[in-house]
Order: sequence, then C-alpha cells, then structure tokens
Amino acid sequence: MSAEPISAAQEARVRDAFAGQGMMKTLGATLTRVARGEVEIVLPFAPHIAQQHGFIHAGGLTTVVDNAGGFAAMTLMPEGMEVLTIEFKVNFLSPAIGRRFLATGRVRRSGRQIFVVDGEVVAEDSHGDRKTVAIMLATMMGVRLDLPRPATTAGSGVLAE
Amino acid sequence: MSAEPISAAQEARVRDAFAGQGMMKTLGATLTRVARGEVEIVLPFAPHIAQQHGFIHAGGLTTVVDNAGGFAAMTLMPEGMEVLTIEFKVNFLSPAIGRRFLATGRVRRSGRQIFVVDGEVVAEDSHGDRKTVAIMLATMMGVRLDLPRPATTAGSGVLAE
Amino acid sequence: MSAEPISAAQEARVRDAFAGQGMMKTLGATLTRVARGEVEIVLPFAPHIAQQHGFIHAGGLTTVVDNAGGFAAMTLMPEGMEVLTIEFKVNFLSPAIGRRFLATGRVRRSGRQIFVVDGEVVAEDSHGDRKTVAIMLATMMGVRLDLPRPATTAGSGVLAE
Amino acid sequence: MSAEPISAAQEARVRDAFAGQGMMKTLGATLTRVARGEVEIVLPFAPHIAQQHGFIHAGGLTTVVDNAGGFAAMTLMPEGMEVLTIEFKVNFLSPAIGRRFLATGRVRRSGRQIFVVDGEVVAEDSHGDRKTVAIMLATMMGVRLDLPRPATTAGSGVLAE
Repeated sequence: MSAEPISAAQEARVRDAFAGQGMMKTLGATLTRVARGEVEIVLPFAPHIAQQHGFIHAGGLTTVVDNAGGFAAMTLMPEGMEVLTIEFKVNFLSPAIGRRFLATGRVRRSGRQIFVVDGEVVAEDSHGDRKTVAIMLATMMGVRLDLPRPATTAGSGVLAE
Repeated sequence: MSAEPISAAQEARVRDAFAGQGMMKTLGATLTRVARGEVEIVLPFAPHIAQQHGFIHAGGLTTVVDNAGGFAAMTLMPEGMEVLTIEFKVNFLSPAIGRRFLATGRVRRSGRQIFVVDGEVVAEDSHGDRKTVAIMLATMMGVRLDLPRPATTAGSGVLAE
Repeated sequence: MSAEPISAAQEARVRDAFAGQGMMKTLGATLTRVARGEVEIVLPFAPHIAQQHGFIHAGGLTTVVDNAGGFAAMTLMPEGMEVLTIEFKVNFLSPAIGRRFLATGRVRRSGRQIFVVDGEVVAEDSHGDRKTVAIMLATMMGVRLDLPRPATTAGSGVLAE
Repeated sequence: MSAEPISAAQEARVRDAFAGQGMMKTLGATLTRVARGEVEIVLPFAPHIAQQHGFIHAGGLTTVVDNAGGFAAMTLMPEGMEVLTIEFKVNFLSPAIGRRFLATGRVRRSGRQIFVVDGEVVAEDSHGDRKTVAIMLATMMGVRLDLPRPATTAGSGVLAE
C-alpha cells in the first residue's frame, strides 16, 4: 500500500473517530498523518502513562498502534462501515525509552471485510534519534455497525458480523 | 497452575509494582487478587478510557490483561528479577460493554527465564452478569534488570537479556 | 463450549474434510474425536516429520492443531460453509518429545462468520505420561466458498469473504 | 537487517540443520538463500501437502516460514548456539494458490538470546506472477542446547533456557 493522499471526507472520518476517543485524550496522543492505507499517531512520554520503572507502559504503545492500524484499514473502507479489531499481536523489541513515540499502521491486505495490518512503534529521543521498539501484526474487520447504545451499565452486545 | 496463596513479601512485590505504574492510576484500575501464578486486575468503565462508540478502548483492556499476565509470572520469579513482556496476542470476542472488566492472567509455562501466560477479560454488567470479551496468549521474560535510568529525554537502552 | 456429540452428518463433514487432506496422510495423523465445538487429532512421532535434533517439527504440531481448531469451528457452522484460517498464534512450551501428540481445538467464540478457537498439543510418552507442549490461539472464518478450481498451475484467487 | 553474505561456516551450519530435517524432505522444500539475517526456502505445490480443497495446507506454509525465520536468526548466533521457536503468529492473506511458494524470514531484532523475526510467503503461479499469501511475526531464542537424546519413546525434556 503506497501512502497516497485520501479525500477530505475520508480523512475527516478518521479524524472524527480519533477525536471521539476519550482514551486518546487521556493518553495525550495526536493523530499526525492520515494517508491511503497508512496512519500515524504520536504519543509523547509522560509519567501518567508509565510503568513501574518509569518507562512508557507497553499498553500505551499498544493502544496507539492498534488505533493506527484500525484507522489505516478505515481509510480503505466504504462510507458507513466501522472498523473493529479482531485481534493483534505485538512484539516489544527494546525498552520503550524516548521523548515521544511514533506509531504507524499500514494495511497489508485489504478485503471486503477482513483487513490485515502491520504496525510499528518508533521511539525518538531528545536528539531526534529513532529506534523501533514494537512491531504489530493485526486483523481488522469492517462492519456495518448497528451496535446497542453503549453505557456504563449496558447489557450484553453481539458483534455485528 | 493452581491459585495458591503466596508469601507476604511476594505479594508486596507485585503490589508495589502495580502501585508504581502511573498508567494504572490513569486508567482507574485496581489490583484485586494476587495468587501463585494468577493475578486479577479490575478496570471500571469510564468515558475517559473509551473509544469513539463509547465502549471501553481495546487498548485499555489490553493494558490491564498484559499487566495481570506479567504480574502472574512475577509471582513465580525469584527476588531481584523483573518481568518484561516479550509479546502478546489478544483476541477480542465481543464488544466490550460492561460496568467493569475483570482481567485475569495465569501462568501456563514457568521456566528459568521464559514464562507463557494466558489471560482473559470478563465484562460484568450492572446485574452482575458476566461475559468473556477478550483472550490473551503472551510470552513474558524474567530478567535481572540493570536498566538505564529512564527519563523523558533518556537515550537508547538495551534489553538486559 | 461443552463437548456435546453432534449429528452423524456434521461428523461426516469433518471426517470427509480430514480424509481429503493429503497433508494429514503425509504426516500420519488420525482424527480421533469430533464433538460439538471440539476436535482432537493424534500425530504419532516419526522421523520423517522431525527437525534436525530428532524432535517432531514444530510445523507438524502446528499443522494438526490448526486443523483441530478449524474443524472444531466447522462443527458449529451451517451446512455449505467452509472454514478458513484467518490467523493463528502458537506458543511452544517444551521440547516436543513423545511417542505421540494429541492436538485439541476448542471453540471459544462462535459467531456468524468469525470463530475464535484455542488449541493445545499434549505429548504422551511411552509410559502414557502427558505434558502440554504447545498452545494455540486462532481466528477462523466461515465462508460460502466458491473458490476457483485449484491446480498446481492455478491463477490468483480471491478470499471469498 | 540488510541481506549481507555470511561466512561459509555459518552458511554450512544452516544448510546442515536444514538437511537434518526429515520434515523438509517430506514436504519437498529447498533451501534457496542464506544471507546475514535473512533466509529463503522454496516449497513447490504438490498434492501430498494439500488440504481438502486442493490448495497447499496452511501448516505446510507455516512449517517453511517458521524454518526460514529460525534459520535467519541462526545466522546471527555465535557457534554452539541452537535456535528454538518460542512462538509465532501467521496471518493468511489469500488462498494459497500457486505453482510454488517462496518463504522468507528476516531478523527484525537481534539480542543475546531473544530474536524477533518476520516472515512472508509469496505464491508464484505458472506465469511467474507473485502474490503474498501469508505473513509471520515470531520470537526465536538462542540456546546452548544440551538436550536429552530424542527418541520416539523419550521421556520429558526441559527447555534449556
């Protein structure tokens, strides 16, 4: 998948989804690039998302790279479809030490419903030096969502596939 | 691995690690059970950790179940060893709808260095009904950490294996 | 998923699929149990499926546990649907030493299209002692197949999802 | 990892390991390239390694791409170390239709013990057209093996980590 530009409407769809996530605001993440089949999210280091040794929590990196992969798939879906993460696998290559982390998701296989994406998290230090600290391989699904209204007390839901 | 009790010192080690994670406080998670080879963390639903449809973010569930698995492995490690996540895979089974989420990690294989853990996230609704919403299979590593002092501007680190 | 019996027709469907696999004959595998959402395949050790240290090849174990998982999902699919492996992850826990290997697949999540299965490979030695040597977590898909006729020189195909 | 040439001794080590695998002979696979951190294995289509629809079995592709990844890691290990697969994940992108399959493994992270590799299987049809049909992300471990002598009746073994 080359990283071609997409239409303003398609980009807006991804930006709206990102903006609608309380979690992205909580982590402090920014959506930095939306291209055809490829999305980048940047997460600056901060103590409120660290683990016990002061490094950024692996779960924080996973949250942004999962989003980058899901949104990358979303750029290839027709309007009215939503993206669900079926599963992901992440390998952590090095301690996640850095000033900020660049998470990229790219579509490797685009189908009617099933999308396979890979992802990468690169740590950038204060000198601008970069190092890959995590790699993801994930399966996303495009669904026409008719989800039950979520709420903190909501009942059970059925995956609309 | 049966869920036997562990020594007060071993439990304290896990509780200290949990308490040292800014991320757990940020998400609002609580460490609810520490047994030999098995740990449970509870994460209540809250909008600040939601995705765009109002459900809890898959990354939030992953963060707590990764921790539960890592801490489960830690209960079987000798003093002075720290746990690193080498990799995990998580399958999401149903929309994560619930009042709170119970993430459990259990050791399936305990070695000198390599630990294989599985994990599960169960959603509980306001009636107390429960449903499994995610399953994890992960590889943890026990290391004698002598990590460089982390900081927001720290340089590169080398995984101490 | 409890391991309930299934209809003769459903069982025949799985047994036919198994019998139609040249690979199962090549490896020397036997289909030993077909229940609702749960299937077992047994693979005896033999040098022709070994790796360089004389142990059974990890790929051989993976092939049978993938099949066990896929067929487990097939027992829950309506007639006319075929099962495809979207992806699997396998952890190898111990050297695969044994006289024979019992691979079990079980459905953990059953949907209209997407099935999540787990699997396990247990090694049995000549005394009948057993040890888990591999664990799988996998995603299967039920599709109404209308595949192009396969042949050694066949052209490209499109996943019929 | 660039694909640099390696010493004759290092290449011989990989070629010996490959030649020592009964499984590779059984499948009909050929070791076609050994470079620094990168190995390629070719598997021609044949009915004896097919599944029920006449396509090559996913387990056959997995077996060769696992080997390609493990051997890629082996090229970066000092003499006397053996490679074990800790775990792998494989996504299947398209029906594996082709005359032959090219499985490549590449090292993404090289440590003292832990190696992260990715892999790819490309199908080639009779016109020479190629298509990626599977992607792998895997964790390998370098160990100084002192394994118990394997045999069809051997007792239990302990992973020498």
